[in-house]
Parts: sequence; structure tokens; C-alpha cells
Amino acid sequence: MAIIVYELAGRDDRRFSPYCWRTRMALAHKGLPAEFRPWHFSEKEKIAFSGQGRVPVLVDGEKTVADSWHIACYLEDRYPDRPALFGSTAARPLARFLNHFVDLVAHPGLLRLIIADVYVHLDPADQPYFRASREERFGAKLEDIQAGRDGRLAAWRASLEPIRAQLREQPFVAGQSPAYADHIVFGMFGWARAISPYVLLERDDPLFAWRERMMAEAGGHARALPGYPLAA
Amino acid sequence: MAIIVYELAGRDDRRFSPYCWRTRMALAHKGLPAEFRPWHFSEKEKIAFSGQGRVPVLVDGEKTVADSWHIACYLEDRYPDRPALFGSTAARPLARFLNHFVDLVAHPGLLRLIIADVYVHLDPADQPYFRASREERFGAKLEDIQAGRDGRLAAWRASLEPIRAQLREQPFVAGQSPAYADHIVFGMFGWARAISPYVLLERDDPLFAWRERMMAEAGGHARALPGYPLAA
Repeated sequence: MAIIVYELAGRDDRRFSPYCWRTRMALAHKGLPAEFRPWHFSEKEKIAFSGQGRVPVLVDGEKTVADSWHIACYLEDRYPDRPALFGSTAARPLARFLNHFVDLVAHPGLLRLIIADVYVHLDPADQPYFRASREERFGAKLEDIQAGRDGRLAAWRASLEPIRAQLREQPFVAGQSPAYADHIVFGMFGWARAISPYVLLERDDPLFAWRERMMAEAGGHARALPGYPLAA
Repeated sequence: MAIIVYELAGRDDRRFSPYCWRTRMALAHKGLPAEFRPWHFSEKEKIAFSGQGRVPVLVDGEKTVADSWHIACYLEDRYPDRPALFGSTAARPLARFLNHFVDLVAHPGLLRLIIADVYVHLDPADQPYFRASREERFGAKLEDIQAGRDGRLAAWRASLEPIRAQLREQPFVAGQSPAYADHIVFGMFGWARAISPYVLLERDDPLFAWRERMMAEAGGHARALPGYPLAA
């Protein structure tokens, strides 16, 4: 039985969760076929069996795993003979640090650049929930959170400098070839590309060429999903 | 012949370079005895043999290595049977990312909190160089750069949140036991402790307890060097 992944989806089948993108890339990296089931914010009951309310949720036979990090660890431990996501026991906690950095530093800035674009691409049934929950969290209207993003873009790009420094020294975040560290970072761009035409990276940014390499990974499967052009 | 390390020193033998602290901790971790030779900014000729002008510089027999990162890699490769600094080939690039994060995000904020304290603890012969070079870089007087630090402390602490998240999940940055990832972060505190009485961490900060654990590493050798009390 193939692996099943419940994956956040918007209208027109756009897949815009950075966490689901991590799982998607990790599965492709390991060469594990999976059935991706589109899931919407309003479908809490569909994943209630996982004991929590967020995606990605992975089902592999009898096993259910939620949370992108736990899923990556599960896949690495369950399929050790497939291409490695971490490469060693010692590497895993260090990839976890990168995971924290992206979640806590890079994601919040990106969200404020594209949060109204997310809304526009949601399934209409999800729009009221998204607007209400995010506007309560930010204390502002979605459109006002995103407004003035050109003025914040440089600061967000600057916040990625530790990743850029890494990519000036080697072709992938994880080293000479991609691994889960790259999937963690790529999640941001899978997310943004799906729902926003906003140009995030300049052509001469080392992240730009790296993103192109990641788009070509695993047979270029990321390109097969709906998204905006990435050229600057 | 013992390993020799040229290490930045201030007055009263205070060792205040975060990069030299990384090397010091890495050598202790590997159980490699070393002779630490105090070096001052004004002694460029003393390390001219290394082909560059900054410390740490490590000399191991015929081999000379400059730059804390290159030194860590050298020690790991040259002494593979000693306790590991990285633990695997896959872990090294991920530790490098943490290295970039600390250098590019955590260090600049810390420098502005204690830069005038550094000056006070310098060898008098180094003070004119330090003041002139740093004041040119910042476009401000040392005392003015440091002024108002209480107002910036919260932001600096917040910038360490990815490390804090890591330490909420495991006792050391590198996992269940310390490794070079911990030495990278500890460098900041070895630096600050040597030359500043300023209280950087609150007692309930996971970094506080971690710093205590690191101070106890390798027989507590960090405590043997001159520094201010760390209690909040």
C-alpha cells in the first residue's frame, strides 16, 4: 500500500504549505511513491485520526505520523537503505537547528510578504477561517499586513544571509548534494511559488541558482505542480 | 611537540576572542594538550608566518592553520580517533550553517552590547588600534555604540531563539552530548565573560543552564581563565 500524505491545498489544487513541501521533497528524495490527498483548513475531521489538526499527516500502512520534522525522522529510520535525509545520527540535531532557524526567523518574515496572496488562492470555504484566525493573530487586516512589502523585502532577504553564506561555499545547504536541510529551506519557495507572483529573489542571489537546482530535483517534480513563474 | 595556539589576549591575560574560544573548547574536547600563546592586536609580526593577520592560529608540528572553522576541520581530520567535533561527514556542513548563523546574527548584536567593555580590558598598547578601527567601522564612538544596551538586550536575546528552541529539546546544541556546534555558540559567552560584567542571560533561559554545563566541560577548564561571574 502506497504512503498517503494529507497535504494543504488551495483553489486550483495549489499546494502552499511549507511543511507539506518538506515532506513532499523528502519522499521524492527517498524515491518513495506517495498518494497526496489535498486537504483544506475546513476539513479537520479528515485528519482527526492523527490526534491533532494540522498537516502534513503521513500514513504508512499501520503507522500515522504528523509534523514535518517527525515525518522526516520516521522516513529516515523506516527506510534507511534509501537516499539519506540526514546522513548520520550526528547530523540530525544540526538539521533540527536549521529547521528552527527557518521556522522562527525566515517563515515569519515571508508570511508577512505574501499573506494576502495566500488568501486569494484559498478555496472559498477556507477563506473566512483563514482571515479570522490570521487577523486575530496579527491584530491587522490581511491586506494591511502585506501592504508595504517592497519596503520589507530587503530585510527578509537579509535574514537569509546565513543560508546564503552556506550556498557561497557549496552547492547545497547540506553539502555537495541535497538532503533534508535543503528540503527545509525549499519549503518556503514551494509555498510562495504556489500562491504568489511576488518576486522574492534576485537573479544574482546564490539562493536563486540553488532554488533552480532544487526545482530540478527528483525529475523536476516540483514544477509539475501549479505555481507562478520564478524568474526575476 | 605540543600544539601551539596564538590566542587573542587583553590585559590581565583575559582571553576574549569568540573564535579563539571555539578552538580552545575544541582542543579540550579532543583532549589535545596545547600551549596557548597570548597575542595582541599590535603583534601582527608574531603571526605573519601564517600568511594572514588574525587569530586563532594553530601550529601542529609542520602544519599551520588559521581560522577557527578550518582549525576545527583540521583537528577532526588529523585526530579522528579522539572524541568527535562533528561526528560525521554529513554533520560538518550543518555545523557550518550554525557557524554562519552565530557569526552573522548573534555576534553583531553581542558586539554592540559589550564593545566598550572590550576596550577597557585591552592591553593599553592595543587600545588606540581597537578604538580607531571599530569607530571607523561603526561610524560612532565605542561608548556611544554600547550606550543604551539595556534597550537592545531583549532583541539580542530574541535573536538566539533558534538556539533556545534547540536546547528546549535536548541538553546540547549538538544533541545528547556537546560537540563543535556547542563550541561555536559557547565562544560568545567565553568572549563576553572575559571582559564584561554585563548580565546577558536570565536564569530561566535554557541557554543559562546550557552555559553552566559548558563551563563544566573538560574539567571546567573555562572557569580557570579570568572572567566575570556569570550568575544573573
